[in-house]
Amino acid sequence: MYFIFVKVIAPVCIKLIIFSELITFFFLFTLKIFVTILKKIDTDCLPVQQLIKSCAGCTQFQTVVATDYESEVKELRRKQTATPQMAPQYAPSLRSRLAPLLLIVQTGFIIIAALCFETKETNKLDRKPFLHFYPEFQDVNVMVILGFGFLCTFPLRYGFSGSGFNLLVAVIATQWALILNGIDSWYSTKIIRIDLKSIIKAELCAVSALISIGSVLGKTNPVQLTLIALLEVTGFVLNEWLLQTLLKVRPPNSIMLLHVFGALFGLMLTWILYRDGSKQGFEKEKFDKKSGLFSMLGVVFLWMFWPSFNSVLVVDDRTRLEAVCSTYLALAISAVTAAALAVLSSPRGKLNLIQMQSCILAGGAAVGVSVSVVQQPWEAMALGFTAAILSTLGYRYLKSHLLIAFECHDTCAALSTHGLPGLLGWLAQLVLQIKYCDDHTVAVRFAVFHICTLFTTVSLSLSMGTLTAFLLKWKFWRPPQNKKCFDDQAFWEFPNLVVRK
Amino acid sequence: MYFIFVKVIAPVCIKLIIFSELITFFFLFTLKIFVTILKKIDTDCLPVQQLIKSCAGCTQFQTVVATDYESEVKELRRKQTATPQMAPQYAPSLRSRLAPLLLIVQTGFIIIAALCFETKETNKLDRKPFLHFYPEFQDVNVMVILGFGFLCTFPLRYGFSGSGFNLLVAVIATQWALILNGIDSWYSTKIIRIDLKSIIKAELCAVSALISIGSVLGKTNPVQLTLIALLEVTGFVLNEWLLQTLLKVRPPNSIMLLHVFGALFGLMLTWILYRDGSKQGFEKEKFDKKSGLFSMLGVVFLWMFWPSFNSVLVVDDRTRLEAVCSTYLALAISAVTAAALAVLSSPRGKLNLIQMQSCILAGGAAVGVSVSVVQQPWEAMALGFTAAILSTLGYRYLKSHLLIAFECHDTCAALSTHGLPGLLGWLAQLVLQIKYCDDHTVAVRFAVFHICTLFTTVSLSLSMGTLTAFLLKWKFWRPPQNKKCFDDQAFWEFPNLVVRK
Amino acid sequence: MYFIFVKVIAPVCIKLIIFSELITFFFLFTLKIFVTILKKIDTDCLPVQQLIKSCAGCTQFQTVVATDYESEVKELRRKQTATPQMAPQYAPSLRSRLAPLLLIVQTGFIIIAALCFETKETNKLDRKPFLHFYPEFQDVNVMVILGFGFLCTFPLRYGFSGSGFNLLVAVIATQWALILNGIDSWYSTKIIRIDLKSIIKAELCAVSALISIGSVLGKTNPVQLTLIALLEVTGFVLNEWLLQTLLKVRPPNSIMLLHVFGALFGLMLTWILYRDGSKQGFEKEKFDKKSGLFSMLGVVFLWMFWPSFNSVLVVDDRTRLEAVCSTYLALAISAVTAAALAVLSSPRGKLNLIQMQSCILAGGAAVGVSVSVVQQPWEAMALGFTAAILSTLGYRYLKSHLLIAFECHDTCAALSTHGLPGLLGWLAQLVLQIKYCDDHTVAVRFAVFHICTLFTTVSLSLSMGTLTAFLLKWKFWRPPQNKKCFDDQAFWEFPNLVVRK
Repeated sequence: MYFIFVKVIAPVCIKLIIFSELITFFFLFTLKIFVTILKKIDTDCLPVQQLIKSCAGCTQFQTVVATDYESEVKELRRKQTATPQMAPQYAPSLRSRLAPLLLIVQTGFIIIAALCFETKETNKLDRKPFLHFYPEFQDVNVMVILGFGFLCTFPLRYGFSGSGFNLLVAVIATQWALILNGIDSWYSTKIIRIDLKSIIKAELCAVSALISIGSVLGKTNPVQLTLIALLEVTGFVLNEWLLQTLLKVRPPNSIMLLHVFGALFGLMLTWILYRDGSKQGFEKEKFDKKSGLFSMLGVVFLWMFWPSFNSVLVVDDRTRLEAVCSTYLALAISAVTAAALAVLSSPRGKLNLIQMQSCILAGGAAVGVSVSVVQQPWEAMALGFTAAILSTLGYRYLKSHLLIAFECHDTCAALSTHGLPGLLGWLAQLVLQIKYCDDHTVAVRFAVFHICTLFTTVSLSLSMGTLTAFLLKWKFWRPPQNKKCFDDQAFWEFPNLVVRK
Repeated sequence: MYFIFVKVIAPVCIKLIIFSELITFFFLFTLKIFVTILKKIDTDCLPVQQLIKSCAGCTQFQTVVATDYESEVKELRRKQTATPQMAPQYAPSLRSRLAPLLLIVQTGFIIIAALCFETKETNKLDRKPFLHFYPEFQDVNVMVILGFGFLCTFPLRYGFSGSGFNLLVAVIATQWALILNGIDSWYSTKIIRIDLKSIIKAELCAVSALISIGSVLGKTNPVQLTLIALLEVTGFVLNEWLLQTLLKVRPPNSIMLLHVFGALFGLMLTWILYRDGSKQGFEKEKFDKKSGLFSMLGVVFLWMFWPSFNSVLVVDDRTRLEAVCSTYLALAISAVTAAALAVLSSPRGKLNLIQMQSCILAGGAAVGVSVSVVQQPWEAMALGFTAAILSTLGYRYLKSHLLIAFECHDTCAALSTHGLPGLLGWLAQLVLQIKYCDDHTVAVRFAVFHICTLFTTVSLSLSMGTLTAFLLKWKFWRPPQNKKCFDDQAFWEFPNLVVRK
Repeated sequence: MYFIFVKVIAPVCIKLIIFSELITFFFLFTLKIFVTILKKIDTDCLPVQQLIKSCAGCTQFQTVVATDYESEVKELRRKQTATPQMAPQYAPSLRSRLAPLLLIVQTGFIIIAALCFETKETNKLDRKPFLHFYPEFQDVNVMVILGFGFLCTFPLRYGFSGSGFNLLVAVIATQWALILNGIDSWYSTKIIRIDLKSIIKAELCAVSALISIGSVLGKTNPVQLTLIALLEVTGFVLNEWLLQTLLKVRPPNSIMLLHVFGALFGLMLTWILYRDGSKQGFEKEKFDKKSGLFSMLGVVFLWMFWPSFNSVLVVDDRTRLEAVCSTYLALAISAVTAAALAVLSSPRGKLNLIQMQSCILAGGAAVGVSVSVVQQPWEAMALGFTAAILSTLGYRYLKSHLLIAFECHDTCAALSTHGLPGLLGWLAQLVLQIKYCDDHTVAVRFAVFHICTLFTTVSLSLSMGTLTAFLLKWKFWRPPQNKKCFDDQAFWEFPNLVVRK
């Protein structure tokens, strides 16, 4: 059996994956070049290009786009006559886009629910009763809604959008994940069971979308965010299904790859949706004393409840205890190390709040990915230490290089908060699992499978990210102008008196 | 038996209730006209009227009021000489009102506790042990103190009062509800048992007071809020007792009518306590970027822990699981629908934060009232969808009409957040229960009882609200001037340096 | 046996303790005088003194300090030529102090963990399974990280430091306490077991450090805070060990003395580290509308989860229920009483937010210390009432007297929030325990032991506080200048655009 595996299946798998990897990258670079050329043409003769694009791509929306085009031409003419700095630039109205999209999606979900959903407590003995999950369900809920929501409130004028759109995306993604996760059981029993465990799983799938959204924070509108949520969750559930059926990865391990999946997906999004304003920095992409504290609040909630996040999918109580203790220790060490490195890497010896917020969470992500094999406290602590170093280096050096060299503006530093620690956790799992193996054949087999797991996740994440990003580039979705990036006023009503001040 | 009921008891009940309803409304309109006349006289010859009122109504406080009157006359004279816009208007001191009231109430509670209270874990087998309730007890605690408290912090300069007075009212109302809820058991055993369940029940009763307080937010002082808490909890416990003894409503169902009770009580309060400044809008009744985020925080906590709120009184684990899942789904759908409708109903296609905050909670209230009969997930989702639509319409159109046509200024939109969804939940319970009934007689019987339940609650809520409001109109409680509405400086010390800036 | 105890052991104990008490006080006053003289010399000829001190005390750091000295001399000369108000005063860089300290401490902890730590669920039957502790573990976690962290964000410009440094101190103190608490079991089994209970105990030990840090909030740098954390936890664990081995105090009772220990430790710190600027009030030691709300958030979390804090160490479910109910009631009464007294004690009849925040928590601390004997609800309520009165008096009158008469600037009023209610709880425990005793001998014996307990705690707290404070006075740790007290800019990077505004 082992021989068959090592000699026959494994090489085929590896070849397939490397091949798909290569194709993905080739595909991406071709696309990037194509996009760059397109962008150059765009700036030369914007309206004509848009007309061509809109005619070619979307005959069904022709009327709408045509009006859009006309109004844009008018606006361009008006601009050329008026002085540019005095012209009031209103953000495009989302009335005709967001409301129908949300209502259609939501009605669809309700219809699917009416056909398939059922709430039933399981009678099987191997499952935990209601009470066992409830506190952790609430903790995960708090992380998803409050933690990620307030994490995104640090830009000076983007607090409402940061927390509000996060809630919107989280609930859409969770509902969609509930449905997709249930397809399997629907085939056999024609019902999708709704219980605490399925909601928790759906929320974890939604987290992968929330991570990606951190990367494009402030540069997209809620219509785009909704599409990201739907497509990313589809990709993530597909990835999970592939890993579980093809590579026999256990559910908790496959779901915990959400850190890697989300970070890379977000990276592709922000790379392809690059805006010219990013390099100089958006005027409003700053934090102040109070908005920094709001995002600190979100981060602190993520930090506190991360042990629940990592342990909620674990079945037996002993491993659960280990997961909780490991995560707690890793996070504690991450916090101290992040502070030390922040002071070291700053020329004036000062701390940076946003960097700290990003790096103190690194330990949690690293332990999360490797939660099934980290048994000794010191392993978790060392992992937290390394993750914090990696995350700090990523934040200080990789983030700005990504922006300058690759034109890839990662607002919330999802790569260094989730991506790099996630990869570290994957590596730790590989090393520790091999260390625990007595048999060399088993170890090699595990390694092959484990590498395949990562490659599948990375490929799927990058390709789905690219697909989504190209869909979002379509002007039909009315992305905010550069001036309206990181600005709540593009999407939210403000009382006049306060604004006038 | 059924015949006796249908032919004898039901008609009597209905007649009684319709009669009481009619009397209540007649009573209210007479009072309103009386108040309007009084107000007109007030504005013509304020000091004389006040003197008459104070002499007539409160001989025991004569000296105090007389001094008040004298100082008011002096102030009026001073104003007429000075330029009105330069005259510093200090809010009236609460020292001689708030401190004695709170100390007397608190001392009274301690004396009652010394005579009756006892902490004892029950030994009966049908009750859950300590651990079963603890996480949900904490969740309800968080909703009551943090959720409702920070929900009220959105006015620009009213954050301290919003969160501080909410805490004050919540703890007074909870203690009072603990005592009132225990009267029943005190008759039989001469002790009032204090355990987690009784505290949870008391906190739910306190929530009805917190909902009402949202309606008069910013226009009352803490003395008035304390009185509201005491009187409303009395009314709510009375209502609960009536429903449980006369109409045999089960405890969870009767308590969950708190949304309807609180909203209507608050409506009566704000109607009768109407101020002339309300129509133009108070200068400080605005939110800004940061105060909006604080109230978002409160709302998010309410949203996250609402499943605990709805399930905490349910006894068996299966229904509890259903309650949690239903509430979660209804809230999720509410959030999406509220966003869609907010964009649709706004002329510029923008979202409104306060409206969103009010509407994303609608699903929770609707499912809460109908929690015992909602079994299928799609029912909960449809309920959440409808509740969000109703709540949005209520916020956008009903709220302003109430203000203009009825002179009823509902600050936190308690009617559309709690009142309308509560009524919807009541209707859903009626429809679903009848659908589940096989026997027509039982269905009719249930319908009659159910309609009586609502009428009793509405009558009691409106009449208690009116009574309370007339008590609060008394100038003796020193309500803040119109200029000091929605202003923390009326009640809180501020450090000089910051204010000077 | 009793005779032996009463006649032999008790007198010896009392004499020993009174003796140690006297020595401690004598020691403290001598030191204070010494410090005052030193300070006088300091102001006369600062650089010379420093050179002498640095030469004498720290030959190993001579080069560093010498450079420091030279730069200081240069700066002094530059200042004398330049106009003082225009000279930019940068806070001293912590790069060469904080980063090495944190990295060394953290690496040390990881090495110790690699040698000793082990995560193992216990198999003994008398211990609770994983699930029993998890919700309360999270509640304590929330209090330690979020509650104490955001409690410290009230100074206008000190929010980042308040919440960030609290996190840093909490995780370092918890890790150190984990190690120190495990020494006992390490002697016997050569492993330190890490489970939820040990982490909870370590977090409670860390709370004593967080209380002290409230006293010196805004006047220290993170290097000093790290040292306080390490030394105070050492002192606290030593105290706990002394109480448990010498005086046979049960673990929950000895740990709950953390309120007294932390408050007195902090008092010594702030007394000896007194700065001349304190009496006039630091320019930035103010709160504004938003920073007050952030600290309200922290306080509200402390308030809500205090029942978990007091009950988490209690073993049997019945006492746990009593602890939860007692704490809840005491906190509720404290909140009402604090509001009443705040209005009474203010000349204009207004509330003070920071005072309220300090006093509504008093009941929790008082019940915490006496948790094992408070059985009747009314006892808890009366305790909460008295604690709130004591705490308000302490905040209004004692705090300013400490500042003016003793030059002791207690920023967060740790003495009135934790110290006085802690002492009250100690007294209540004494009175109630004696009341419950039937036997006079036992009562006397308990009283002697109980008084010894307090004296040991106070002695150890005062002497460790003094030691720590003198260590921190050393200029080598680069404390912030008076101008940079209560200012985030001394330690945190700010984006330029926002600062420029």
